[in-house]
This record gives sequence, C-alpha cells and structure tokens, in this order.
Amino acid sequence: MKILVGCDLGYQASGPATLILNIQPAETPRQRVLRETLAITPEGTRTESWTVPGTGNRYLRIHAEAGTALSIHHEAEVELSPHVVDPAGVSQTAPAELPPEVLPHLWPSRFCESDRLERLAQREFCGTPEGHARVTAVCNWVNDRITYLRGASAPTTTATDTLLSGAGVCRDFAHLAVALCRALGIPARFISAHAPGLVPPDFHAVFEAFLGGKWWLFDATRQAPLDALVRIGQGRDAAEAAFAEIHGAATPTGMAVRAEVLEGLDVARGARTTLAVADAAEAP
Amino acid sequence: MKILVGCDLGYQASGPATLILNIQPAETPRQRVLRETLAITPEGTRTESWTVPGTGNRYLRIHAEAGTALSIHHEAEVELSPHVVDPAGVSQTAPAELPPEVLPHLWPSRFCESDRLERLAQREFCGTPEGHARVTAVCNWVNDRITYLRGASAPTTTATDTLLSGAGVCRDFAHLAVALCRALGIPARFISAHAPGLVPPDFHAVFEAFLGGKWWLFDATRQAPLDALVRIGQGRDAAEAAFAEIHGAATPTGMAVRAEVLEGLDVARGARTTLAVADAAEAP
Amino acid sequence: MKILVGCDLGYQASGPATLILNIQPAETPRQRVLRETLAITPEGTRTESWTVPGTGNRYLRIHAEAGTALSIHHEAEVELSPHVVDPAGVSQTAPAELPPEVLPHLWPSRFCESDRLERLAQREFCGTPEGHARVTAVCNWVNDRITYLRGASAPTTTATDTLLSGAGVCRDFAHLAVALCRALGIPARFISAHAPGLVPPDFHAVFEAFLGGKWWLFDATRQAPLDALVRIGQGRDAAEAAFAEIHGAATPTGMAVRAEVLEGLDVARGARTTLAVADAAEAP
Amino acid sequence: MKILVGCDLGYQASGPATLILNIQPAETPRQRVLRETLAITPEGTRTESWTVPGTGNRYLRIHAEAGTALSIHHEAEVELSPHVVDPAGVSQTAPAELPPEVLPHLWPSRFCESDRLERLAQREFCGTPEGHARVTAVCNWVNDRITYLRGASAPTTTATDTLLSGAGVCRDFAHLAVALCRALGIPARFISAHAPGLVPPDFHAVFEAFLGGKWWLFDATRQAPLDALVRIGQGRDAAEAAFAEIHGAATPTGMAVRAEVLEGLDVARGARTTLAVADAAEAP
Repeated sequence: MKILVGCDLGYQASGPATLILNIQPAETPRQRVLRETLAITPEGTRTESWTVPGTGNRYLRIHAEAGTALSIHHEAEVELSPHVVDPAGVSQTAPAELPPEVLPHLWPSRFCESDRLERLAQREFCGTPEGHARVTAVCNWVNDRITYLRGASAPTTTATDTLLSGAGVCRDFAHLAVALCRALGIPARFISAHAPGLVPPDFHAVFEAFLGGKWWLFDATRQAPLDALVRIGQGRDAAEAAFAEIHGAATPTGMAVRAEVLEGLDVARGARTTLAVADAAEAP
Repeated sequence: MKILVGCDLGYQASGPATLILNIQPAETPRQRVLRETLAITPEGTRTESWTVPGTGNRYLRIHAEAGTALSIHHEAEVELSPHVVDPAGVSQTAPAELPPEVLPHLWPSRFCESDRLERLAQREFCGTPEGHARVTAVCNWVNDRITYLRGASAPTTTATDTLLSGAGVCRDFAHLAVALCRALGIPARFISAHAPGLVPPDFHAVFEAFLGGKWWLFDATRQAPLDALVRIGQGRDAAEAAFAEIHGAATPTGMAVRAEVLEGLDVARGARTTLAVADAAEAP
Repeated sequence: MKILVGCDLGYQASGPATLILNIQPAETPRQRVLRETLAITPEGTRTESWTVPGTGNRYLRIHAEAGTALSIHHEAEVELSPHVVDPAGVSQTAPAELPPEVLPHLWPSRFCESDRLERLAQREFCGTPEGHARVTAVCNWVNDRITYLRGASAPTTTATDTLLSGAGVCRDFAHLAVALCRALGIPARFISAHAPGLVPPDFHAVFEAFLGGKWWLFDATRQAPLDALVRIGQGRDAAEAAFAEIHGAATPTGMAVRAEVLEGLDVARGARTTLAVADAAEAP
Repeated sequence: MKILVGCDLGYQASGPATLILNIQPAETPRQRVLRETLAITPEGTRTESWTVPGTGNRYLRIHAEAGTALSIHHEAEVELSPHVVDPAGVSQTAPAELPPEVLPHLWPSRFCESDRLERLAQREFCGTPEGHARVTAVCNWVNDRITYLRGASAPTTTATDTLLSGAGVCRDFAHLAVALCRALGIPARFISAHAPGLVPPDFHAVFEAFLGGKWWLFDATRQAPLDALVRIGQGRDAAEAAFAEIHGAATPTGMAVRAEVLEGLDVARGARTTLAVADAAEAP
C-alpha cells in the first residue's frame, strides 16, 4: 500500500529559538520511505537531523534567529506492508518472559500513571480473555467511556484526568489505554502517526501493546484504519513522542497535515480493530 | 429501638491545644437522647459546647494546657424511630424544585469533587431509574468498584482519588457516592454516625441524599443496618463533619468506640439498603 | 460613598433549564441598597428569590422553557460606609477564642485545600507579624508569585493548581490566599463583588479574613480599592459563591458588568491594601 | 577511594513471582567494581542478568516459585575516582547545543512534572547565576522548603506533591530538584546509589544535571558526600531506576543495606555540594 503524507508548519520567532521536530516517517522493514521532500525557509536556516537508535524516531533541530518567520514543508511517499494476522493467535507474554528492552514499557510515565490504576484495571479486565482480545477490551472500554471532544484536554492532561473527565482527543485516548495495559502487566507505548481518513486531517495518536513477542497496533479512537497508519514517533507517552518541541521565543503560526492513500486500500473498509496489525513480523 | 453508644478518647498535649469534638448524637424528632454522660479529665478542664442551628451538630471545645493528658468519656442511650418506607415511592426532585437550603448540597466540596465527575456520572447512571433506585445504583456501583481496605487512604484523599485507587474506608465510600449523586443533580451530604455491628467497632461514615422532599440514608459500604444508625454530625463532606479537630500541640493517645442495640433490632437482619430510611417524615 | 453597579446577562435555553443567580448586592448595615432595578425577559418568566440567613447572599432562581432567549438586566445604587482603620491595631484570634460560627472558615474547601498546605504556609509566614500584617504578607506573597493571566485557569482549578502553575485570575488569587490563611489558622472566606476601576469591567473576587473579632477585606490582585467594593456573595470558595449556576440545557450568550463610583471616592487613590477595611464595626 | 557496599533482601512468594532488581553498582571508567559477590537462595533459583546499553543499569531477574522464601545477598568492593572540579567553571548548555541523547532528560516524567512548574521555576531562579551555581540554588531551595520526614510520601508521590506538602525522603528531594532543573531548561536525571554515612543506612537517591557537556552529581538532601557515592541505576525518575520491581505474588520480608568507606575519604569532611563532582571527565 502506498500513502502520501506531509505537513506544512509555520512558526514566528520573536527571539532566538530552537525547534525540535519529529514529523518524518520512521523507516522500518515494513514501512519504506520511497521519496521524501523537506524544505525549510528562510533558506540557510541552520538545521541538524538524527535518528534515535532503538526507537527509530527521526528528529530535526532547527535554529531560528530572532524575527524569523519559519516555514517547514514536508512530504513523503511511503510504502506499507504491515504484518496482519488473526488476533485470536496473538497471546500475552508474562513479565517473566519479556525481553529486557521491553520492560520499560511496563513502567508508569508522565501521562500514563499506570501505578495509580492497578486495582481498577484488574477489576475491570480480569474477566476478559488474555492476549490481543484483552487489549481490544481495553480499547472498547476507553471508547465507551471517553467522548471525543476537541478542547476537552490540555497539554498537561494525564490518563487519570481523562478517565475522570470522560472526554479528550486521540492523545488522551491513547494515554488512557496505555496506562490500563501497563496496569494489567501488558507493555504498551505511544505512537504518533499519519492516518488517512481523519476529519479534519491532523496528526494522529495511537498505541502499541507487546503481545506474543511483537508490538501490535491499536487505536482506541477507532478513527483510522490500522493497516494504513504511517508511524512517525514512538515513546512511552506524548512527552516522549511530541511532533514539535519549542525552546525559546517561537510561537506556532499555522499547521496543515495530509495523508492520502495512493493505492492499495479502500479507506472506508479499513482494518480498524478487527484484525491484529504489527509493523514487524519478527521480534522487537 | 434503643441503642447505647459511646466513646473514650485520649489526647496528650505537649503545648497549649484546643480540641473541637463532634461526638455527641444529634437530637432530632426521631432520634431522642434518653440519657447522656460526658466526663472530661483532668477535672477543671475548660470546655464550651454548642449546637449549630441548621445542622444540629453538637460541638465540644476543650482547652488543654501544656503537659495535660486529656481523657474524654462519652456515653448516651438513644431512642430511634426512623421513618422507613418502600423505596419505590421515593422519587427524585428537580433542581428547579429544591428548597433553597438544600441547594448547597449540589455544590462540589473539598473531598467530593462532583464538578469533575459529571460526564462519568451521566454515562454510568443515565440508564438507571430515577429516585431512590438511582442512589441505590450509585451505592452498588461504589461497592462493586471499591475494596474496603484500612490504610488505603489518607486524610487528604478525595472522591476522585478513591475512584482511581479502587480502595478505601467508610469515609471514602461515602465521599465517592456523595460526589456521584451531586454530579447527577441529586443533593447529597456526609453523615458521621455510631453504627452497631461494625467489626472492629469504630465511628462510621454514611451519607444522605435528598429525594422527594426528604433526606434519605444510604451506606455504600453496606456494613451497618441503616435503621439503627445513630447520627452524630452532618456536613458536605468529612471536612465539615469531623469527629475531632486538633489545634495546637496535642496528639491522640487512644480511642475506643461502642454501639450496642439494647432493644428493638436484630442487627443480623438489619435493613441495610433494601428499605428507604429517613430521620424525618417531614420536609428538611 | 455611592456606587452604581449592574450587569446584563443573556442565556439561550435549548431545553428546560433552571438558572440560579447571585448578582444582587448584599444588604448590610454598612452597605445599603438605595434603589435597585431587575428586569427579566421574556416577561412572565417564572422566578423566585430568597436571601440566605447567615451569609446574606441574595439568590434569584429563573425557570427557562426550551427555546427561550433569556435576558437579565440588573442595576443598583449602593451606599457604602465601610469601617476603615489602621491595620496595626487588627490582631489575630486564636482558634480557642473563635466564635463557633466562624470555625467552618478554617476548614479546607473544594478550591482551597488548606489541609495540603500547612507545612508550606507555616514555613513561609512564621516570620511575619501576626494579625492583619500576616494576611497582608499572604497577599503580597500571592501577588509576587502569581501572574494575572486570563485563560490560565479553568472552573476546576484549585488553590494548589494555581500555586504550581503560577498564573490565574482574580478567583484563583483569592483561592490561594484563602487556603494559605486557613493553613495558618486564620479563618478566611471568598467574596464575590462589584469593583469600580477594573479593566475590562467584570465581576471581581476578593476575600475576607477573620481577625480581632471581625471580617476584614483583602484583594490579593491589588486591582480594586477595598473601600469601594460592593459585596455580592460570600462563601468558603467560588463553589459557594458563584454568580450563576446553570441546571439543564442553557448556555450563556453574553455578559456585561459595570461598577461606577457616583460620589465619594477618587478611584485612582483607592485604599487597596494599605488600610484595614471591614464591612462591619461589630462582631460577625 | 575504595568503598564496600552491599545489601541483604528477603521476599516471600505466596504464588509464582518475578523480581527485577537493580542493586549492583554500575561499571564506568571512574567507578570500577573490584570484586563482587551475589548469592541467591534457595539454590537453583532461576535468574537472568543483563546490562542496559546507554544507561549501564545492571538488572537481575529472579523467578520465584510459589511458597519460596527468597533471600538475596550482594556485596561489592568499588573503586571510585570521580572527576572533581571547581563549580565556577561548569557552565550551562543551551537546548540548541545539547547532544541528541541528552534531550529526553528535558522531558517531564512520571514523578517529575516539569511541564507544570515552568513559570514557578523561571520566577524563583531567573536571578541566580547560570550553570552549576543555578543547580546548587535549586538544591538549596529544595533543602530550605522540604522537611526530611520518613513516611511523608508514598510510592505515587510526585515532585509537585512534594512541593505542596513540604516533606519527603531522598527520592522526593531528587524528584523535585530534577523537575525544577528541567523546567529551567537544564537536563536532569535521577540516580539511585549507595551512600556511606547515611543514618540509618539505606539506599540513597540523588540526581545529575547536564552542564558544560557532562553530567554532574547533586544531592538536594545534603546527606552524603558526593564524591563517595556509588551509583547503581539511572533513569528519568524513580519509575525508571527502581531498586526492586515485583511482578506477581511476592512481598518483601526484610532489607539491610550497607556502604562503608574502606580507604581514601574521611566521610565527615565529605564534598557535599561545595565542589562539582562528575562520574566522567569526558562527554556523555
């Protein structure tokens, strides 16, 4: 499947500022970037880029001088060949058997206070079947209880805030689902992504759970087809997978995001949560 | 029904201290104090007492000098004739029709942050029948989700903390139920009480909801018979109905509480939540 | 001093709704309402009004039918003769000597979690002189640390939230100051008011502390002259002194507030926090 | 300097359980483990161990069968040759110049909600000199405001909780200092350690700030000499550097910790916060 993704971002720097962006698709064996354009104006702006070993997150650090109107244009054509299987065969892995590099995804994090939700999670989900089905039960639980509502949350909103308020956006849905998974002993991480079919178009936030030796994608908002997601960043929560961090005196002036299936998927039929979708067919 | 209630409290004052106690049963048309003993040592300790108009809470202010080992002995024989009816006939009152003096019990309070739970409460209880049955549904919901566990909470624990942690004591059960009622537009208040049958004996915390023109008793812990509760204090939450407040340098050294049915009730059969129990047959 | 105050409020009811307003000036021996106009359209709207004994808060309950565009016009001419003295003579009252009806103002409340701030308050203010000067120190501390910033807080924001975030509006300043006073053993309450000189005009929130047998006004924002404040409501925090509560399906469509000194004060010179100002010369 | 460190830990497994321990000293160019003993009973207990690339944290995973009384004995002799310099020469690094691998230590984490403290941190520390002196000012601020008090905090206590409550233990001091550093744009991380001289002996928690291209040690509790600390684990907060994680049905039954200077330091004179101490003389 081929997908065209991209964004246009604008910032105004009233003083010296440093932007750290994570907007480029990750490159994985099953997510290939066929071609990519990145244009930053004004020309001559000092930038650096790097890819983080382990996560594969691609960062761009941009140094803006005082008075600069900065504009970032990104576009990429991505080929996806996700690993899609029957969820019935995706089983849970005991903490005793988890690979060491996966264990940190059981820990609580800034926006996913799983340590405060252990009793609640056990009580709500102890009756559900283990494995992929249990994480699907978590997604359904979150989807039933949280209203998708723009403006209902703030940058400091956490999973427990969302559970109490009953409303949020994609990032909040992902945080609550991740926190519940960890509280159940299932490693989980936050994924920022491009998703075709969002109305209005925007960056999306979903999550992955580690089951049967692999990371599987889930979307508690059920707004996008899982097998057409173009992953950008991963982290334990949004604090570790932000699209943009601003240091210094810059303010956003505009943002447009797009994701379009070029071939290979009828978005309307999208896989959503009925099949198990992973980025890799192999161990992490 | 006659009930014997009482307590022995000890405090050590390392400096000058003022204690404010609310341990004496309220006097209402349906809760009569037949006889009462109050003894404070050392003799000559300066005390004052008053009853608050409106709530009927009876306070005792005790002034302890530095170095005093204070001991308070209280005992009362109380006759209860609660108003007990079929809950099916106890209907809900719209905010438009609530008496002015009841409206403050819709407001959020220190330990009952009903303003943070409106969406959650509506979603969980919109399908339950209105009136007494809805408050019973709230009690059942709390009882199903909260584990009674000594030490699980602290003096600063609120209703939302308890909802998240999934554990607490009688005060926490009452706070969460009160918060949910208010979030549903049902006035609710916190009641401190003597309750026969508690193991181990202790002060108890229950709550009242205002329905059909009257305040009805509920116990989300289901640990005590509602029609044998001897009410002590009422308030919007535990901050307004504490047994003891200490100002200055005193520390508790001991507490023993007792409540015993003298005649008129087989505790084992207690009414619990199956009948509607009120202190009064008339308007508030 | 004569002050003209008033407001125009609009609401649209998409379904049946009940509004409870507390917008009319309190009537006290030192705050006399000389004349007052209240007009509610559409004509024939069902309303009730009452004054709460003890607080003197004046409430208006308005019943709006579905589809109604409700408009409330209020105007009053008020004569103030506040009790103004040298703050040096206003001393602190020990908990042991507080009148019973004042004690509830030592308790923590929904937005003033004084129970969480005791150690911090003792540490910050133990070196300040007791009495009126200590509460002025609290005001200065809050004013130094909190930036007045519209949009920095939400209806659920509490005193501890404000202390951490370092920004808020008048209501947040008042909550934090009240919480610190109570943590210091000084009874304090929230006051909603009309204040001449605010830019832009709006309802104002200040607070009172109980010192030397009387309630004294303080404004931690330092935005209005204390001796020209027209008090509307009082409560332990904003949950108990809201201008408007909405039950049912109504949304605000507009608000304009005005407060104008007619005679007796040069607003520019206003008393602010340099003199001690009380509503009464007698005990509470 | 040579230091002898060790611990004895006991656990009782009532069902199958997995323990993940991080109790062994890290091995770095300036912290050499000269000899080390690790004994786990019962004999034959299944264990695995690994060292995390990047952090150097050494983990031990122990699988306990139901009914096992597990006992872990660890002892190591460690040689320290810390890099100690005059703090005046240790300057601050702008976000624009930070190495990519250091940037995550600017992000908020579970127990260090730096995103909630930005305005407060700027206001409190904008007047202090940049660099090592600013972090020392943070340590002093925390030390002045937080009382060291066992039992004042819980496993879920965060930096903002500690700031409000005004009391905590070493872990809470470290969390608050780390959160303030990050809010000031200074990368900071949590360090678990052995520390000679603690009364009573216990594991210790300190922190590091990234300044002038290196990580420098700080101890906001001022309880241990910085140049005699034996580092065990590092992470963004205690969630990422726990001594012990329990999965399944095991409970701790005992813990004894020891750290003793064998040669090279008079503990009483310890460096504390007057000199700048780093583990490495080179870049991270």
